[in-house]
Amino acid sequence: MSENFVKLNDRVILAFEDGSNFIVQIQETSFGTHKGVVDLANLIGKPYGSKCESRNGNYFRIMRPRLVDEIFKMNRRTQIVYPKDIGYILLMLDVKEGDTVIDAGVGSGAMCAALARCVGPSGKVFAYEKREDFKTLAESNLSKWGLLQRVTIKLKDIADGFDEVVDAIFLDVPDLWNYVRNCYDALVGSGNLGIVCPTTNQVQMVLEELQKYSFIDLEVWESLFRQYKPVAERLRPFDRMVAHTAFMIFARKASEF
Amino acid sequence: MSENFVKLNDRVILAFEDGSNFIVQIQETSFGTHKGVVDLANLIGKPYGSKCESRNGNYFRIMRPRLVDEIFKMNRRTQIVYPKDIGYILLMLDVKEGDTVIDAGVGSGAMCAALARCVGPSGKVFAYEKREDFKTLAESNLSKWGLLQRVTIKLKDIADGFDEVVDAIFLDVPDLWNYVRNCYDALVGSGNLGIVCPTTNQVQMVLEELQKYSFIDLEVWESLFRQYKPVAERLRPFDRMVAHTAFMIFARKASEF
Amino acid sequence: MSENFVKLNDRVILAFEDGSNFIVQIQETSFGTHKGVVDLANLIGKPYGSKCESRNGNYFRIMRPRLVDEIFKMNRRTQIVYPKDIGYILLMLDVKEGDTVIDAGVGSGAMCAALARCVGPSGKVFAYEKREDFKTLAESNLSKWGLLQRVTIKLKDIADGFDEVVDAIFLDVPDLWNYVRNCYDALVGSGNLGIVCPTTNQVQMVLEELQKYSFIDLEVWESLFRQYKPVAERLRPFDRMVAHTAFMIFARKASEF
Amino acid sequence: MSENFVKLNDRVILAFEDGSNFIVQIQETSFGTHKGVVDLANLIGKPYGSKCESRNGNYFRIMRPRLVDEIFKMNRRTQIVYPKDIGYILLMLDVKEGDTVIDAGVGSGAMCAALARCVGPSGKVFAYEKREDFKTLAESNLSKWGLLQRVTIKLKDIADGFDEVVDAIFLDVPDLWNYVRNCYDALVGSGNLGIVCPTTNQVQMVLEELQKYSFIDLEVWESLFRQYKPVAERLRPFDRMVAHTAFMIFARKASEF
Repeated sequence: MSENFVKLNDRVILAFEDGSNFIVQIQETSFGTHKGVVDLANLIGKPYGSKCESRNGNYFRIMRPRLVDEIFKMNRRTQIVYPKDIGYILLMLDVKEGDTVIDAGVGSGAMCAALARCVGPSGKVFAYEKREDFKTLAESNLSKWGLLQRVTIKLKDIADGFDEVVDAIFLDVPDLWNYVRNCYDALVGSGNLGIVCPTTNQVQMVLEELQKYSFIDLEVWESLFRQYKPVAERLRPFDRMVAHTAFMIFARKASEF
Repeated sequence: MSENFVKLNDRVILAFEDGSNFIVQIQETSFGTHKGVVDLANLIGKPYGSKCESRNGNYFRIMRPRLVDEIFKMNRRTQIVYPKDIGYILLMLDVKEGDTVIDAGVGSGAMCAALARCVGPSGKVFAYEKREDFKTLAESNLSKWGLLQRVTIKLKDIADGFDEVVDAIFLDVPDLWNYVRNCYDALVGSGNLGIVCPTTNQVQMVLEELQKYSFIDLEVWESLFRQYKPVAERLRPFDRMVAHTAFMIFARKASEF
Repeated sequence: MSENFVKLNDRVILAFEDGSNFIVQIQETSFGTHKGVVDLANLIGKPYGSKCESRNGNYFRIMRPRLVDEIFKMNRRTQIVYPKDIGYILLMLDVKEGDTVIDAGVGSGAMCAALARCVGPSGKVFAYEKREDFKTLAESNLSKWGLLQRVTIKLKDIADGFDEVVDAIFLDVPDLWNYVRNCYDALVGSGNLGIVCPTTNQVQMVLEELQKYSFIDLEVWESLFRQYKPVAERLRPFDRMVAHTAFMIFARKASEF
Repeated sequence: MSENFVKLNDRVILAFEDGSNFIVQIQETSFGTHKGVVDLANLIGKPYGSKCESRNGNYFRIMRPRLVDEIFKMNRRTQIVYPKDIGYILLMLDVKEGDTVIDAGVGSGAMCAALARCVGPSGKVFAYEKREDFKTLAESNLSKWGLLQRVTIKLKDIADGFDEVVDAIFLDVPDLWNYVRNCYDALVGSGNLGIVCPTTNQVQMVLEELQKYSFIDLEVWESLFRQYKPVAERLRPFDRMVAHTAFMIFARKASEF
């Protein structure tokens, strides 16, 4: 069970009754919101879930940020992989404690964080990113979430190949088909490859490339998640939904002979 | 990186070229298939991913079973939670290493295994099941997958309440609404509740019950996963798909005052 | 083939290159837009599809409004039935020339127009509406579209029953379950009933009621339409879509004995 | 209102209580089923919807076949356009009484029948088919349904162009992109083009071709229809559904200048 009282340096959600919420780190400072100033030091020692008040009397709840909350709130400059897809990718790549995984490219670090959580303290994520600003951003995000020690982010073009041989690779770059060969080379036998891309043209090009190497269990998926209004007496879906994020392509490495 | 050669007692997939496959444990025995007998001891020392032959000359690949492979191949007597939903539930419940989690009821053990993987060696899953045959089945499945040491399965009716206070609860029983109160009591503040059920009537009844307690962040979701034929030059979805498994309901515990 | 030149009193779409468009009736007047004034009389005699110019030199195309264009552009004060559902309802109700149909309630008249088109000049739509303002609005819309002569709109509460016996009934009111009996009475043997409603609770109540009468072939449907960006080299769905409009319930009348 | 008693030569559905059903034409003959022989002549004069008995005492209902029933029961040798798509296509092509329409290729005649119903007795469908066996089959189906007099089926390769200029064209052949030009030439200004195809590759090639001509309002859609079990107290979708039939592409002809 998690230690259940707010401590110095904890990251917490301040969840106001109007639905607005903020993720902050508990420091000896105050935090200004449209609902009044919150004295963060005063929150230390409060139980999670409890109701507190800003200086001008607006109530909020102190909640623990989940990884999904962090992802939707984080600084980002890239399209992220959505939680609806992240969960399935983690399962299909079978990422578990002790595994080594490559994440290429790292972008804002959302998927990297999810992978780092799954490999546990005994595992390792090698993340590749060729843009220095994304590398810096991802490191900052991973550091906040306490996951950076499991991740090595390399400022390196994956066209030059990967430096490791790993259990699983997650590939999320625009010209994916150019790196399928390098992915094959960097996987252990039976290792799992996961690829995401937004267009059908990219899927076609990746499939063509995958067929050149000894991959098996090729699968292409997309997911649609529909949310319902949580009202017992008028249960119905919301009017609109996300129609598309990415196609997910999976394959497993077989040896060449 | 996983040790990459087949060892005694490993569970492996024998993947034949006709698409059929079998999960077996490597022993000093042979295993009969419609494609010929396989001498399992001969596989020891082979690299994963490599091509082998049955006694009558049919080729197969030796692959590592992923948890998703185990779930679809396991002995089961109950409706299982599908991988398409498992991944999202794990994220929404924010299950991570060191967490304690309740799984009620355990059924065949698929969701329990997924939870056990996420809590890691330092976490714990308390599983409740009132039918002895399901408890035995789940224990057998979890044992095969090397996850039983992280799980305690209790033969107990959850109407009598839970014995623990935990970070997250996963509830999957027919009359869910009767246990919402017990779930509230067994969660730490800010703890996560996840519920699955197949019918809209059940969702309505759960929502009514959730509103009686101090839960926040109520969300109701369903997922549709569509698979494509992995053919570059004729890329299109398969003709048919799973239309429905379960609605997923999520809520977070706030304190009562 | 339609007479293919613009005539006085035609309704036309002025489709500008920025994607904006307007439906107007050709009169001896001018029509002001953010792209300049259009002299409508000058359009008479132009072929449909041709490119014209507003007074300040902005190009537009003259197109024929389809019923779907009219529906999305019409004056309305009610939630409309969406084209994605209208087409399927017309098929399932098997509406065809010469049929008599009841439309209850008429709302803004979108579904009524679709029914009126299908019954042709030899058929008839009896529309029921208890709000005078909706009746006036629907009459105005149907009149514009040249369909009012096939429709009789009655200012009448359907709780008092229907005055006709018809081939098909389309029911779209909030408390649908109260009128299932009246629908049964107003259908010919083998006649088709179509019902739309937004919530699962309404579907449940309608189903309960339908089971009390001698209806067969009960079907409940919902439709999801997903649109793709029409770009050959980057073919992918749009980011967002309509997640829900209404459930569609269909049943056919069998005689009581 | 339809004449509501069974007459000689009517096509009727015999709907048995086990869910099986048959579409037959009323003649002075008998019709054998697994539920016993039905004397068809005895049904003449019965009201539609009424309950009858086979020679060995099994009950059935006499229902009018809807076009959707005919389509799912017809003799066919080709993939058909599904009702879920037909309804939307008819709306998007804005087919209405008096219109002239081209249907290329006709296949088994399902879409052709739907078009013929919509154009009414004053309209006309010109159907193109290059295989004689399909032409014969479609004529037989359309004749049964009383729609052949509105349709002219031509045994002709559409590579040679169309002989008419029409309000709308529906194109459903494998190599669609080769005929976009001919479609453009055969449409009136503002006329509607509808195309269906199963693969994303085909959509891409059609879009490339459409961009070469003066088409506007390009739209690409797909539909997912999900059916629910019609049970009030356990309302939920069926387990499986159709995942894919075809992509629908729509465009409208603008003039070239």
